[in-house]
Amino acid sequence: MTTGQRPSGRAADALRAVRLTRQYTKHAEGSVLVEFGDTKVICTASIEEKVPPFLKGKGQGWMTAEYGMLPRSTHSRMDREAARGKQSGRTQEIQRLIGRSLRAAFDLEAFGERTLHLDCDVIQADGGTRTASITGAMVAAYDAFSKLMETNAITAIPVKHFVAAVSVGVYQGTPVLDLDYLEDSACDTDMNVVMTDSGGFVEVQGTAEGAAFDRATMDRLLDLAQHGIGQLVALQKASLKG
Amino acid sequence: MTTGQRPSGRAADALRAVRLTRQYTKHAEGSVLVEFGDTKVICTASIEEKVPPFLKGKGQGWMTAEYGMLPRSTHSRMDREAARGKQSGRTQEIQRLIGRSLRAAFDLEAFGERTLHLDCDVIQADGGTRTASITGAMVAAYDAFSKLMETNAITAIPVKHFVAAVSVGVYQGTPVLDLDYLEDSACDTDMNVVMTDSGGFVEVQGTAEGAAFDRATMDRLLDLAQHGIGQLVALQKASLKG
Amino acid sequence: MTTGQRPSGRAADALRAVRLTRQYTKHAEGSVLVEFGDTKVICTASIEEKVPPFLKGKGQGWMTAEYGMLPRSTHSRMDREAARGKQSGRTQEIQRLIGRSLRAAFDLEAFGERTLHLDCDVIQADGGTRTASITGAMVAAYDAFSKLMETNAITAIPVKHFVAAVSVGVYQGTPVLDLDYLEDSACDTDMNVVMTDSGGFVEVQGTAEGAAFDRATMDRLLDLAQHGIGQLVALQKASLKG
Amino acid sequence: MTTGQRPSGRAADALRAVRLTRQYTKHAEGSVLVEFGDTKVICTASIEEKVPPFLKGKGQGWMTAEYGMLPRSTHSRMDREAARGKQSGRTQEIQRLIGRSLRAAFDLEAFGERTLHLDCDVIQADGGTRTASITGAMVAAYDAFSKLMETNAITAIPVKHFVAAVSVGVYQGTPVLDLDYLEDSACDTDMNVVMTDSGGFVEVQGTAEGAAFDRATMDRLLDLAQHGIGQLVALQKASLKG
Amino acid sequence: MTTGQRPSGRAADALRAVRLTRQYTKHAEGSVLVEFGDTKVICTASIEEKVPPFLKGKGQGWMTAEYGMLPRSTHSRMDREAARGKQSGRTQEIQRLIGRSLRAAFDLEAFGERTLHLDCDVIQADGGTRTASITGAMVAAYDAFSKLMETNAITAIPVKHFVAAVSVGVYQGTPVLDLDYLEDSACDTDMNVVMTDSGGFVEVQGTAEGAAFDRATMDRLLDLAQHGIGQLVALQKASLKG
Amino acid sequence: MTTGQRPSGRAADALRAVRLTRQYTKHAEGSVLVEFGDTKVICTASIEEKVPPFLKGKGQGWMTAEYGMLPRSTHSRMDREAARGKQSGRTQEIQRLIGRSLRAAFDLEAFGERTLHLDCDVIQADGGTRTASITGAMVAAYDAFSKLMETNAITAIPVKHFVAAVSVGVYQGTPVLDLDYLEDSACDTDMNVVMTDSGGFVEVQGTAEGAAFDRATMDRLLDLAQHGIGQLVALQKASLKG
Repeated sequence: MTTGQRPSGRAADALRAVRLTRQYTKHAEGSVLVEFGDTKVICTASIEEKVPPFLKGKGQGWMTAEYGMLPRSTHSRMDREAARGKQSGRTQEIQRLIGRSLRAAFDLEAFGERTLHLDCDVIQADGGTRTASITGAMVAAYDAFSKLMETNAITAIPVKHFVAAVSVGVYQGTPVLDLDYLEDSACDTDMNVVMTDSGGFVEVQGTAEGAAFDRATMDRLLDLAQHGIGQLVALQKASLKG
Repeated sequence: MTTGQRPSGRAADALRAVRLTRQYTKHAEGSVLVEFGDTKVICTASIEEKVPPFLKGKGQGWMTAEYGMLPRSTHSRMDREAARGKQSGRTQEIQRLIGRSLRAAFDLEAFGERTLHLDCDVIQADGGTRTASITGAMVAAYDAFSKLMETNAITAIPVKHFVAAVSVGVYQGTPVLDLDYLEDSACDTDMNVVMTDSGGFVEVQGTAEGAAFDRATMDRLLDLAQHGIGQLVALQKASLKG
Repeated sequence: MTTGQRPSGRAADALRAVRLTRQYTKHAEGSVLVEFGDTKVICTASIEEKVPPFLKGKGQGWMTAEYGMLPRSTHSRMDREAARGKQSGRTQEIQRLIGRSLRAAFDLEAFGERTLHLDCDVIQADGGTRTASITGAMVAAYDAFSKLMETNAITAIPVKHFVAAVSVGVYQGTPVLDLDYLEDSACDTDMNVVMTDSGGFVEVQGTAEGAAFDRATMDRLLDLAQHGIGQLVALQKASLKG
Repeated sequence: MTTGQRPSGRAADALRAVRLTRQYTKHAEGSVLVEFGDTKVICTASIEEKVPPFLKGKGQGWMTAEYGMLPRSTHSRMDREAARGKQSGRTQEIQRLIGRSLRAAFDLEAFGERTLHLDCDVIQADGGTRTASITGAMVAAYDAFSKLMETNAITAIPVKHFVAAVSVGVYQGTPVLDLDYLEDSACDTDMNVVMTDSGGFVEVQGTAEGAAFDRATMDRLLDLAQHGIGQLVALQKASLKG
Repeated sequence: MTTGQRPSGRAADALRAVRLTRQYTKHAEGSVLVEFGDTKVICTASIEEKVPPFLKGKGQGWMTAEYGMLPRSTHSRMDREAARGKQSGRTQEIQRLIGRSLRAAFDLEAFGERTLHLDCDVIQADGGTRTASITGAMVAAYDAFSKLMETNAITAIPVKHFVAAVSVGVYQGTPVLDLDYLEDSACDTDMNVVMTDSGGFVEVQGTAEGAAFDRATMDRLLDLAQHGIGQLVALQKASLKG
Repeated sequence: MTTGQRPSGRAADALRAVRLTRQYTKHAEGSVLVEFGDTKVICTASIEEKVPPFLKGKGQGWMTAEYGMLPRSTHSRMDREAARGKQSGRTQEIQRLIGRSLRAAFDLEAFGERTLHLDCDVIQADGGTRTASITGAMVAAYDAFSKLMETNAITAIPVKHFVAAVSVGVYQGTPVLDLDYLEDSACDTDMNVVMTDSGGFVEVQGTAEGAAFDRATMDRLLDLAQHGIGQLVALQKASLKG
């Protein structure tokens, strides 16, 4: 595979440098700065001692996510969503994706009538903000549950699987892993994949922005994603031991 | 494969009865009632003689989609989005998906500075409203472009591929095609697939609502989708000849 | 009276072809497609087992209406109200009118603490959408109450009167009944009248868009409305026997 | 007719004391405090040197109205519409009514590409705020056009008719003129009528809140309205001479 | 000090003519028209027999304020905030200021679980609307508490201090008291001061719109404010005896 | 003065540790992380090559500010303003304050028809977020203007004064400088002061949340602010040399 062609010089199957910094801010029960190269997202997990109305009295918990970008996290300044008075369709799509992914990772019936709010705020964007968000939110959520254990509110971390996420796509004809902004804005096909540490698919969202892609390409992209997510989960677990 | 277990008695790889009724309402340039079994969606295509600001003066056209459900198209009445004052995240996700899918079907540079508005309004819902919408909107858009040819505004229908869409999922352990409401609300995994008539993938959106699914299941689901979309495209083409 | 001058060729006191199709969609307790010529409106009646806060504990029921138009139900495409984030003043005026008219038809104290939601959605517009809506919603509401009788929730249909509605106006100097779009957009005076089957006035809303009109014209318009509503009520009753 | 029964002791065909105070505030081109008994409304007319987009370049003017109530203009405090973030359906209905009524009074083609904004703000409510608003706005608009004459922007007041408005209704079985709050909140039927000084109908909006009303009652109500509006127009003309 | 230079001819330390008219409208528990020269504001105080959720069950009361301007209270017409669908930042700033000032005047723990709503609506603006609002709202609130005493709901007016407010600023180099519109729009520095009758500061909000101002100017402005507020409190107390 | 009583052990006239980190994120023309102790705010300055409509064609520039807090920057999680659909009154007050303060620092007529957008986003809050924002935004704006000099778009940094801001307040009877959260939430009086490097006042916003404060206290608070701002300006200048 010719890999010299990626703007970053990375091999087709290489992740960017990934860093997970825990306890990044001091108030949240879980607070992680996740970096996928130059993409930087603050993920916090906040525990609220109640559930939304539709779950009241059912004895189970809930997890929900919100996502935002600082106006100048991007190349040119974006409008502030709070000032415009509404979240874009893209923002809503992303925060629904993060929420579903994290609810797949934890056992909602094992932590009582509590809500875990995951906030993913992008402070610098360079492609892959949603996959970085999911990967970081997993660690922040884990830390928040550890806080609940410290106070004996729960007796075990209610984790079912670790989940992590990565993007894959076709850049100048070659399937590649973990697209940065330069690749993302030029590529024909872009797929975000969320998987568990045991190799199960949680979410697959692929879009052919230019030409439709064939089944062989689909297979290669899924291989790359599986490869990358294995590495990301290892980093998550190492970080939690740190 | 045991197929007797689907609530509808359909085989695992069987579509529901699909009907496409053209010229369903009289004002729109294209107007199609699409039925996937009991799911009924009115798809209209309206031509506007201008483009959004970001395309002004570039000599190309645009296609965009909106989606809605009548409040009592569903089992229990939903709030009217116009009365609540905003569209839900789900609605926005679906209309973005329809728009991307249709823009993949037509050559935006071949019909001048015009916008094609696709409106997909569900009058009765029984699962699969977004895939029915895409399948019906393809025909409505085709009809609208035919209108432009009649007035010599364009010299050929600017179609690149036909696109159609179908859902696939895992129902009680078995991968099945074209989920109806009973299956959809009970299934573990749900994937919406949009493909071209030449077998290329345009969109793949899969979610494991319960257990994560493995690669073999993924492969089987993609097979089913490919099989169903072949039949849907044939129905679209037959309808346009009728 | 010279009647040849109506665009449709109708006599001044002639309604358009009116059709009422019950059980038009499958989920709602009452569901009627009402057609006044080319004007087509889906009217559904949905029962909710509670009342708004201002009626809680008073032992009576409530009826309320919402109205919408599909974006391309009209000659040129209208903005979707859900996308714009608010309902127009015209929409609110119409749904308030439908709600008041239907509350005049039924005995709110005779069906318990329930709310009947009437949704009138125009799928094709050719003038008179609000009068068609009221006429169709009457039948949909009746059907919904029949459902309540089937389950013994009530012991009689709580109807006080049948109500129906029709527009009248002055077209090219002549008072005419049941204006279609061509007449409506050209006429000087337009009046919507809602009456009971016993000839009582429920609502009268007249507007002189061009010249003010005199008392004699007012009298003739009220005569025409009374004549038309008699026929509409007969059609409603026949439909419910069908 | 027994008239002693009105809470105010007025005869059935008697208006409340009506006062029109011009130049009530100092900035507006026309500014009138209109009082119908204890109902007090500030009506201002403001001239803007442009028209809305749909009239640009057509060489004609436009008139539009807005209506509001101070939160404690009423018996119990209402929410402030600016704080709630939207105008109620009732508010929109009323301001549309005021706008149509005033556009019927003036020749829109005779004052150039200007917009007259009519603002009717209720500072104390005791029934009939919309009819007082129309009656006062007529005088405020006239004054604003006089200002335009002073600067030679126009050469004549572009008035076609004077318009005034009054409510009529059935209170305890008797048709009465100009309902105050006590009557309005108890009455079965309520009709707002807008007429010209030459006796033409501009708007008729009647609602049977309780029992439907018959044709004879309708006729009597129209007589009362015609009687009252004659007096109101005389007061408007006298005020403008003052 | 050269005082001839103020547009109004007032001395640098002279207030405009200030009038407080109680019982200005009939429904509110307290209703005051306050005039600072040509600035006219209707201040009403409305009692509600409950508190906001955050105070429920704490046995204390609450006071809150809202502020608005009639669209043509100003030199050129402003958009109506209710029509635009939101209150401006300026409006919110002012109503928060009024609320804090009045809560400093009364003992919130001495009138039970009640809310006092203060509505300050400007009907004519000529500078100083926020300081007139605070000064008038003080009297309206006092009157509302008197109503509560009449019904024995409380046994004493829960007043801690009288508060009043005035603006000061630097006009053409000279510190002056109580700026009118001509001064306000031309001045470099503008400060609003709220004080108690015993000379304590409640709020100080100064802004240098042009050149920054020095400490000596600050001292002189505070002197002027103290002087003016003494007079305003005397007028409030006289008014309540009247 | 007894200073041992501050929760942080600081002297009454001591600032917290203040740090200014330039080039904190990579896309913005100016990007500064400002820390006042545990309060951390990202301040970016973005240049847009146009001005708002009200300044078009006047040959001058504009500066405007927006402010936000990450939902879990605070002790307990706040609602996300973008999700709620509007900015709070507090947010609007703060961003108006930042904008006015920065416009006082630079010569708007000296950098052409450009807009400088200042975004201040709090990632961790511990009191004094608005004063930290102003202090950091000054440096970010300076850096952005330096970028304009590098491209020869301007020939000199259009700075008139340096501005910085600090809070002062009365904590347990003692006037103190630069309140942290523990002090802020317990103190009686809180004043935010913005000054220039030459000792001029730009903004003074003081509020007595508990007891009103006297003139001597006011004088002491202004002394403290002047003292602290001198140090902050020195830090800004040192940072820009670094």
